[in-house]
Amino acid sequence: MKTITSRENPAYKEFKHLATSSQARRKAGRTLLDGVHLCEVYLDLRGLPQHCIVAESALAHPEVAALLARCEDGQAPVTMLPDALYNAISQVENGVGILFVIATPQAALPAALSVHCVLLDNLQDPGNVGSILRSAAAAGITQVFCGPGTAFCWSPKVLRAAMGAHFVLDIFENVDLAALVQTARIPVLATSGYASQSLYATNLNQPVAWILGHEGQGVSDELLNLATQRIAVPHLGQVESLNVAACAAVCFFEHLRQNQR
Amino acid sequence: MKTITSRENPAYKEFKHLATSSQARRKAGRTLLDGVHLCEVYLDLRGLPQHCIVAESALAHPEVAALLARCEDGQAPVTMLPDALYNAISQVENGVGILFVIATPQAALPAALSVHCVLLDNLQDPGNVGSILRSAAAAGITQVFCGPGTAFCWSPKVLRAAMGAHFVLDIFENVDLAALVQTARIPVLATSGYASQSLYATNLNQPVAWILGHEGQGVSDELLNLATQRIAVPHLGQVESLNVAACAAVCFFEHLRQNQR
Repeated sequence: MKTITSRENPAYKEFKHLATSSQARRKAGRTLLDGVHLCEVYLDLRGLPQHCIVAESALAHPEVAALLARCEDGQAPVTMLPDALYNAISQVENGVGILFVIATPQAALPAALSVHCVLLDNLQDPGNVGSILRSAAAAGITQVFCGPGTAFCWSPKVLRAAMGAHFVLDIFENVDLAALVQTARIPVLATSGYASQSLYATNLNQPVAWILGHEGQGVSDELLNLATQRIAVPHLGQVESLNVAACAAVCFFEHLRQNQR
Repeated sequence: MKTITSRENPAYKEFKHLATSSQARRKAGRTLLDGVHLCEVYLDLRGLPQHCIVAESALAHPEVAALLARCEDGQAPVTMLPDALYNAISQVENGVGILFVIATPQAALPAALSVHCVLLDNLQDPGNVGSILRSAAAAGITQVFCGPGTAFCWSPKVLRAAMGAHFVLDIFENVDLAALVQTARIPVLATSGYASQSLYATNLNQPVAWILGHEGQGVSDELLNLATQRIAVPHLGQVESLNVAACAAVCFFEHLRQNQR
């Protein structure tokens, strides 16, 4: 285990740059996983990080110690930082001081939509994107395609909200969703509060591609027109629609329910 | 319409105190609704506010003008603030400058749990609480009971996330949930990732009381033991459970689905 004690150390400056700039993460093709849970899921599902960073005060924490031992067994580099330096990198308040630096997973865009998947059209809120990734992973979806306007999936907020779902999914960003929909070999279902077709009257006994849209404006007209069907979650109340992440969960689990029978 | 131009004006100081302190809102039994959507839903469903506050630059906005006209027709007091003063009160970035001051709705606690309802046990995150209120209202639930540890429902973040759901629900806060569950005349279903009973194998053809718990720890053991049944949303994936607001939406809409048939 190395120790860095100077804010001027080049490696420290690089960690800090990754921690504080989305642009730096995109450019470097690397991101940070903050906290015990994300690091543990990554080790379990994807293997060793490029680098493990630990706060001095966290060394005595038993879960952190277990993760460090796994990193050191696998010969991943580990760097210890005094708490003051560590806290300038971590974005988690009152978190336990461990971070992984990882290569942002990249997969080649499939030639066609052919497995149960979700398309995110211009979703703005990182918490919503993270919650949707988490629900998708729990419902057995394996592919997520994000249009250019959707929040960056590898940001700290999305990573935190998704609780490790990133590592059981293939996530594709900056995808031309309209072109992708035209490759579909499965039904493409766009959610819309204005649709007359009910989710519950829709036969979901096969893989589908879900399209979810912007928090205020919904799915774009272009994608609504390209979809096989527009479907709505029926409401009983007087209030305006559902939160998009709640809508996603209802759709994904209705699919799971129909396929469990 | 009055105009306030001084930060030392007593009415302005009171508005600012309400805007910036949850404790002040609780103590005064008043809260603020920020933005066109919440104000409009309130006017539609609950009537006139105690006070309407508008930013000078918003006067020309057609939706704001329509809301002001409704307030003035009903003789609700309206105060215009220069933008600098208004912006110190509003919590919505890039919002349209209108706020209502309202009396926090209060309803008498029912003697028994007897209608479709939800109990929130120690939910921490205002976004989750707001999303659950919104899903509840959309699924036709009318009563929400919050234990003492749950986020304050009349905070700006919860109000924003719930998009007006507050005004079609009766919300009860600081409720002794264990005592309440013992009054139940309907099944009480506690959600738990460890339950063996599947949501989809549960007969929901009657009103039920849902219990949802803390984001990390779930529903407390005391309430799990008092519930009629513990139920789980079945998962296909390798990841840890669902976000609690996603879980709530899946449960509420499965109830709606079973009762629509």
